[in-house]
Amino acid sequence: MLRTLSILVENRTGVLNRITNLIARRGFNIESIAAGPTQDPTITRITLMLLCDEERLQQVIRQLLKLPDILMVRDLTPVDHFSRELAFIKVRSDEQARMNILQVVNIFRGHVIDVSPTTMTIEISGREDKIKAIQEMLVPYGILEIVRTGPIAVERGDRSMNVSTSG
Amino acid sequence: MLRTLSILVENRTGVLNRITNLIARRGFNIESIAAGPTQDPTITRITLMLLCDEERLQQVIRQLLKLPDILMVRDLTPVDHFSRELAFIKVRSDEQARMNILQVVNIFRGHVIDVSPTTMTIEISGREDKIKAIQEMLVPYGILEIVRTGPIAVERGDRSMNVSTSG
Repeated sequence: MLRTLSILVENRTGVLNRITNLIARRGFNIESIAAGPTQDPTITRITLMLLCDEERLQQVIRQLLKLPDILMVRDLTPVDHFSRELAFIKVRSDEQARMNILQVVNIFRGHVIDVSPTTMTIEISGREDKIKAIQEMLVPYGILEIVRTGPIAVERGDRSMNVSTSG
Repeated sequence: MLRTLSILVENRTGVLNRITNLIARRGFNIESIAAGPTQDPTITRITLMLLCDEERLQQVIRQLLKLPDILMVRDLTPVDHFSRELAFIKVRSDEQARMNILQVVNIFRGHVIDVSPTTMTIEISGREDKIKAIQEMLVPYGILEIVRTGPIAVERGDRSMNVSTSG
């Protein structure tokens, strides 16, 4: 089962490496990873998607918490949460195709961020299934490039994950 | 100087770990990382932001290319490119504050994805400076949580980075 882990870490050299190292040693593949600063610039939040069963996940979480600079680990899979990612899609497009592609982009509430005589570049955000759906609509034109952030996740409601309120 | 690296890798267990390991050994801190599948599900694209001078960056690129499962590495910093990320911001908000926060969200073309009696959760995509700007506007209300994907990047125009067209 695909699990969504949220990890708060000190923003220090090597901390990301310790996390990926632990996960690689256990033989799990990281489906996606997205990491960026939080409201506290010394703290980074990492969102990991892991294909992993419940028992082994709990082991991974316990071991992650023993690593230096790891402040908090949360499995967001069982709680009500939002999960979204951002993607760029560069697609082949001559003058004739442009109108049709634009229509697809509008339906999915994407944005065209660049046009060349032979290509269009689209920005789209949403759940994984939405990215997949627009991708499938654009395949016939010829997809040249896809870049995805991997999902980030946040819990619904007033609960928040940060070091000061829950430490 | 902050550098934007785009890396195409085989989607295999341990490849991310080899990359973070190489970078950690060199003593660089990864400012952000975002990784997701490309149009070819066996290939993952990783966008890395690294604080690094030109000479040492070229060393890192050469060494990355020697690792197994690394297909391509490109420094997008000197080329004309787009760079965007996605962020969730959960902010304290009672009934009174809600209208004012909504106004800020609209100005930045964000979306409210969740509301509770005491909080609002906002989704916003854009360049780093835009995320920073809305963040600053929301600080007075009380930011409870920020989750960011870290930027992804794509070159402007018709050039694309993929294994089949440039390998």
